Amino acid sequence: MKVALDAMGGDFSPMEAVNGAVMALNEMSHLEIILVGDKTLIDEELKKHNYDKSRLSIEHTDETIEMHEKMSPAMAVRKKPKASMNIAIDCVTQGRAHAIVSAGNTGALMTSSQMKLRRIKGVLRPAITTIFPSKHGHLVMLDAGANADCKPEFLNQFALMSKVYANVLLDIKNPKIGLLNIGEEEGKGNEITKEAYTLMKENDRINFVGNMEPRDMMEGEVDIVVTDGFTGNIVLKTGEGVVKFVFDFLKQEIKSSFVLKIGALLLKPVFKRMKEKMDSSEYGGALFLGLNGISIKAHGNSDGKAFKNAIKVAEKFAEADLTAKLKKVIDKEA
Amino acid sequence: MKVALDAMGGDFSPMEAVNGAVMALNEMSHLEIILVGDKTLIDEELKKHNYDKSRLSIEHTDETIEMHEKMSPAMAVRKKPKASMNIAIDCVTQGRAHAIVSAGNTGALMTSSQMKLRRIKGVLRPAITTIFPSKHGHLVMLDAGANADCKPEFLNQFALMSKVYANVLLDIKNPKIGLLNIGEEEGKGNEITKEAYTLMKENDRINFVGNMEPRDMMEGEVDIVVTDGFTGNIVLKTGEGVVKFVFDFLKQEIKSSFVLKIGALLLKPVFKRMKEKMDSSEYGGALFLGLNGISIKAHGNSDGKAFKNAIKVAEKFAEADLTAKLKKVIDKEA
Repeated sequence: MKVALDAMGGDFSPMEAVNGAVMALNEMSHLEIILVGDKTLIDEELKKHNYDKSRLSIEHTDETIEMHEKMSPAMAVRKKPKASMNIAIDCVTQGRAHAIVSAGNTGALMTSSQMKLRRIKGVLRPAITTIFPSKHGHLVMLDAGANADCKPEFLNQFALMSKVYANVLLDIKNPKIGLLNIGEEEGKGNEITKEAYTLMKENDRINFVGNMEPRDMMEGEVDIVVTDGFTGNIVLKTGEGVVKFVFDFLKQEIKSSFVLKIGALLLKPVFKRMKEKMDSSEYGGALFLGLNGISIKAHGNSDGKAFKNAIKVAEKFAEADLTAKLKKVIDKEA
Repeated sequence: MKVALDAMGGDFSPMEAVNGAVMALNEMSHLEIILVGDKTLIDEELKKHNYDKSRLSIEHTDETIEMHEKMSPAMAVRKKPKASMNIAIDCVTQGRAHAIVSAGNTGALMTSSQMKLRRIKGVLRPAITTIFPSKHGHLVMLDAGANADCKPEFLNQFALMSKVYANVLLDIKNPKIGLLNIGEEEGKGNEITKEAYTLMKENDRINFVGNMEPRDMMEGEVDIVVTDGFTGNIVLKTGEGVVKFVFDFLKQEIKSSFVLKIGALLLKPVFKRMKEKMDSSEYGGALFLGLNGISIKAHGNSDGKAFKNAIKVAEKFAEADLTAKLKKVIDKEA
């Protein structure tokens, strides 16, 4: 399988993208990578590494879409056709790669992926998936931000698509799917969740387990939580904010005394495992689910390991032909 | 000031409600309390305490609305007119108390408060306020769950009402108000937040600082965050869930070795401060903002201290005549 990597996307590009690419090549003997970006800068980074050169190629471009691009995503995609992100996606549409990974501007990547890869026929809206830690492992949450305004039928279809996704990524046959809501009982929530509940309850192609409150979803009762893109993004960012707040608070407090510093030192391995557990980059970024092709968004602050994981997941989806599986499921629905 | 306390609401009633009432009486020499509930059970608890008996009275009733009442809130309120919660609110509407506190069923308390106290004229929707920890202290978030479906103009009015609330509770003259959203820039978000942004930006009676992402709001950049009741409730429960997840994980890990146990022991005071910081019960429960009277919801699992804090806050709002101040502000708007 061949993965196109936008080497210029992310806060530490191209260094960390190149690091990740090399790590992935060294771990997977059948993997090929196309690095898209500024050849001079990429070569500079590549010089530092040992890897199988026959499985890596570079497509040069000196245009990039900035993380905080002033133009709207749609405008940036149109006005910068030679941007590394756009060319990386072109590699997939033109059949030169099986999947694309970028840590660049989310809005632009989403827009470009939709414009170039297009939705699978029958897909109402593509959704962004994300992985959340839970007591027994992880859960999938979607939509994590692609569609700020959703109709109930979008959520019902997200559920169906996410089932295929969980089959491939997490090897769960008939995942338990919950609807993110502010109460457990049927009839709770806003207009969208009330209607989505009815649709999902009647949908015999999914294993719908009912409403799921955010404080319960991490207890491990579900494999997938479905929500609209506004709420999903809010949950994601609230989680990040609370974790940061807790750890900043601990750090600040611990500074204040020698005894506390000793205690923190003893607990260091636990804090490290905690951080790993909360760190979604272990699971390789977010997929735009519902497109004719594998497009993966790695976190903007991805390090080499995060890029490597994103590449591995991209390869996994391509290898399993997720797109074909999705098409089959969506076709049946129609 | 006289506060009516629903002694039967909450997970540990009437014990913790009575504990809280006694603590509040002993701390505030001018406070009077009416305990509403089963007189036999309440007397049993009161026997354990020393307090000024002249400032405490009991209104007996043996009817209660359960925490997990099978009937809808509206039905429960109508079918159980003698429920402790309803009678406690009647104490306010009949002029026998200045404020009411309950840790009972949120939906029922909201419904009963609305039915009996009624909205202030001109208030589009009452909102539930909640207090969130932030780096420099706390912030107010509303609506935390009263209105699952909101119109943009509700959010704009929540902002105005919350300004009065922050004046009284937190002594902040011109609070910085943010709109909870999934991006910082104008134009981000769903239909409701986009329109609410425009209204709030044009509202020269509030100090609107723009969109606020959940991960930034705890950094202390704002005093108030405005959102719809669905999103607010999701944020609240996500926060609770993540904190619980982090501490459960730490507990579980620490169990596994003696060295880690020592480390945890040394850090105990820090964990305790952390817990206090995250514990919203320090700030006395949630207010139903926009009603003709002070109605406060204490957390269902309130202990004596949480009840005491809720009573103190109720007293503070009554003393400052929050309702009159709100009326004045809403009148000006009309």
